[in-house]
Amino acid sequence: MPVPRDSRAIGVFDSGLGGLTAVRELCRALPGESIVYFGDTARLPYGTKSRDTVTRFSLEIATFLVRRNIKCLLVACNTASSYALESLERRLEVPVVGVIEPAARAAVAQSLHGRIGVLGTPATVASRAYPDAIAKLAPGASVISSACPLFVPLIEEGWIDHPVLREIATEYLIEVRAARLESLILGCTHYPLIAPLLHDLLGEGVQLVDSGAEAARATALLLRERGQLAAGPARHQFFLSDERIHFQRIAESFLGHELPAITVVDQTDLPWFERPMAIRESGA
Amino acid sequence: MPVPRDSRAIGVFDSGLGGLTAVRELCRALPGESIVYFGDTARLPYGTKSRDTVTRFSLEIATFLVRRNIKCLLVACNTASSYALESLERRLEVPVVGVIEPAARAAVAQSLHGRIGVLGTPATVASRAYPDAIAKLAPGASVISSACPLFVPLIEEGWIDHPVLREIATEYLIEVRAARLESLILGCTHYPLIAPLLHDLLGEGVQLVDSGAEAARATALLLRERGQLAAGPARHQFFLSDERIHFQRIAESFLGHELPAITVVDQTDLPWFERPMAIRESGA
Repeated sequence: MPVPRDSRAIGVFDSGLGGLTAVRELCRALPGESIVYFGDTARLPYGTKSRDTVTRFSLEIATFLVRRNIKCLLVACNTASSYALESLERRLEVPVVGVIEPAARAAVAQSLHGRIGVLGTPATVASRAYPDAIAKLAPGASVISSACPLFVPLIEEGWIDHPVLREIATEYLIEVRAARLESLILGCTHYPLIAPLLHDLLGEGVQLVDSGAEAARATALLLRERGQLAAGPARHQFFLSDERIHFQRIAESFLGHELPAITVVDQTDLPWFERPMAIRESGA
Repeated sequence: MPVPRDSRAIGVFDSGLGGLTAVRELCRALPGESIVYFGDTARLPYGTKSRDTVTRFSLEIATFLVRRNIKCLLVACNTASSYALESLERRLEVPVVGVIEPAARAAVAQSLHGRIGVLGTPATVASRAYPDAIAKLAPGASVISSACPLFVPLIEEGWIDHPVLREIATEYLIEVRAARLESLILGCTHYPLIAPLLHDLLGEGVQLVDSGAEAARATALLLRERGQLAAGPARHQFFLSDERIHFQRIAESFLGHELPAITVVDQTDLPWFERPMAIRESGA
């Protein structure tokens, strides 16, 4: 009997380019799968914005991807996963995988005494999504969270080896380093790019959990269980809502190899950019 | 004969809260004027985004403000002034004042030998709006520009007195300090908050030009010339497109006093957020 196949693409979205770390992991685990990626570069970052706004942006992007006939949606953005996952699950017919539960599960598995740290954006930390997910999996675990709002701009500027980043990280990690952690969740898709620095500050005994990679593995598992794997050939499509300064450098640092062609979506292509002639109506 | 009066409000917009420095200056110069302010906190920052996207956002916000019956528009955002001013002037019937020309004029007036520096976002610097404006006013002037992408996130995080800010500023200012400047344009509404640090690094001989304050003065002059000043009482309205973490602290640091009530605009209130049922149409 032939194995069931589903040649539809996997949808992946992020506020920007950080979600390409999850794409890299997907390509590694499932080389036959096609991917449709959306990065909301016109409105990034999400990590300092409110639950309502992040949920609205996420629903708009999910709509865009669902119309491209995806078989499941990977929400690579930690902030969107923290704030919008339930809304997405409620609205979409395809299964939705966020980063929170897979990363929490990996952290719990690597923490014998349940001492877990979380680094994230202000929004992800404020949402308490990680502590809540960990409490469900390991009720006795203790979780220390630290919001690291300056990591994303520093990484996007390419200051990964700059001494200033180490100074800022040292400050953000004060409580986390005092907590004798067993594992630390990198609760933002940008943070794996500074994993060497974090290892250096925390010591090799602390396991770093890459939330994007864990979500990619969870997606692979889900598709295998549902008999929805594709047989290839893989065809990837990348959409951004704005051109990006330093785009190629940033994208390649996340993806680890040269990026295929990108489409910057025109506003008229997008459900969420269609407006009933707002400008013309103004009389201005 | 009575002096002509125009009680309509002055519209002011910025990508976020930085434009409140211009509002402060307007209130000082023209205490009888009403102001309608819009801060695009859902989509900030603008300074790393493209000309097309910044122009589109600016037109949408201008439309929102024009519908609130403003008599002129002050574009407090340097990035929007650099990229979108011509489009706004072409589309709007009310006069539009940007920050570039007023700040360039002030810098030229304070630079006997025409040695002028500009600090700005990557977009403002890439646009060459300041060098072009200065060249028109003082063809022999020499202009040194430096993009300072990390200033805005550091200032928004309140790290104004943090040693890391000084380190980063020292790096950004290397060329500017070597140029024996007479004046330096603070080409972003956030930068006046770090004026003491910049003074310290550059020496008191360099005149700092506050672009938002200069634009506010140009607006006052324009209204006076057109006989469109208001007699009071002033009624201010503040709109944001998203709630903002640390909002009150940031707003008060810009405005210098407690902020009046804020309206976070609902998407259905806004021309530019109206979409023809994108989510429902998706079948998801």
